[in-house]
Amino acid sequence: MNLLLLEKTDFIGDDRVRISGRRFEHIKTVLKGETGSLLSCGLINKKMGKGCITSFGFDSLEMQVTLDMDPPEPLPLTLVLALPRPKMLKRILEGVTSLGVKEIYLMNSWRVEKSFWQSPVLEMDNLEKYFRLGLEQGRDTMVPKIYLKRYFSKFAKEELPIIGQDSLCITAHPKTSNLCPNSINKKTTLVIGPEGGFIEFEVTTLEEAGFETFSIGERILKVETATTYLISRLFT
Amino acid sequence: MNLLLLEKTDFIGDDRVRISGRRFEHIKTVLKGETGSLLSCGLINKKMGKGCITSFGFDSLEMQVTLDMDPPEPLPLTLVLALPRPKMLKRILEGVTSLGVKEIYLMNSWRVEKSFWQSPVLEMDNLEKYFRLGLEQGRDTMVPKIYLKRYFSKFAKEELPIIGQDSLCITAHPKTSNLCPNSINKKTTLVIGPEGGFIEFEVTTLEEAGFETFSIGERILKVETATTYLISRLFT
Repeated sequence: MNLLLLEKTDFIGDDRVRISGRRFEHIKTVLKGETGSLLSCGLINKKMGKGCITSFGFDSLEMQVTLDMDPPEPLPLTLVLALPRPKMLKRILEGVTSLGVKEIYLMNSWRVEKSFWQSPVLEMDNLEKYFRLGLEQGRDTMVPKIYLKRYFSKFAKEELPIIGQDSLCITAHPKTSNLCPNSINKKTTLVIGPEGGFIEFEVTTLEEAGFETFSIGERILKVETATTYLISRLFT
Repeated sequence: MNLLLLEKTDFIGDDRVRISGRRFEHIKTVLKGETGSLLSCGLINKKMGKGCITSFGFDSLEMQVTLDMDPPEPLPLTLVLALPRPKMLKRILEGVTSLGVKEIYLMNSWRVEKSFWQSPVLEMDNLEKYFRLGLEQGRDTMVPKIYLKRYFSKFAKEELPIIGQDSLCITAHPKTSNLCPNSINKKTTLVIGPEGGFIEFEVTTLEEAGFETFSIGERILKVETATTYLISRLFT
């Protein structure tokens, strides 16, 4: 936890918060916080700053906070992922949130196992938990938006062209020698397929929606590795 | 499995192999291979090419292979990691192997939990398994070398200066505004700390060993995300 993420309900005064539960335990046992300790903190979807622990109880602590800094710049990226395996999805969501991604679409694809859509990982409470962990890790307060799209063709044909408007539209796909550009640093919509890759029909549909196909060379990466790798490559 | 990794003991003739066990099951159930199927394959630490399934049995298959291609270029990177949590280490080893890393040092650090050094993940048989998975993923045959270094000071003071000779020496550390360069594409030795970061003494020791401290900006990433992120940033 590199930033203590506050909610409105934590406030017991204009600049005073009370923290209990998971965050309290983390501050106590991992960060070894005590009265007088200074911690980075931020209010969800608002400003960030510092908090000073004013009292340390058995199961809660109080802090005085000054929130006067803007969160870091978001990445100008819309990330579209074929729904990954639930365990990997957790890590991806936490990871891309820590990297500054703010728009995420999870879509269906031929090689996505149907059961993945039934996973509790996709329940909104859980998604929010992964986002929070990612924000605490990356020192940010702005919660990403996430959309679930269960119908590939409808989504790719009707919605993706609008989502990708005014942005560089990329499908990451190992079966091309077209190398993914680097240091783009402008608005980008990046589509990443499932383990095993998109089928030809899907690649074609994406191409028709304006998404050019790029690879990263001879190597093929897992979705999780590819996602971080491509974000770093596009935005450095 | 994007490449079937062969061992010398698989060969039953000059250009014929017999495959059973995990690889057979994967070819059968995931890749849906059958007699006549063509698969990418490669001999460990040797050349790669294609194999054609010539017979498909109940618990093994036979292939005729032609291995006439060089494996992809290795990354000119020596990766030095403060020993990560075992579960994460597995994924990191598989991931960096798929990215083409060939030299890995796992070292101790103040914030590395002692118990991590007792993990079965560090047994050579297991390390080799993760490397194989990474090579199968990244379509490569060259197994990385790995070294375990349990004494930080001795390693950082005596060995690291020699390991880093003639290379760009970098310590990734969030507590600097010195931004990590990108697209270096030359020999680099990259040191990445534990969760929670290096302590000041360690950063200083690394600096004295010739390792300059760089961050990736305001955000702080998990070791796993940082490793992939930095590799992509340095080598694009």
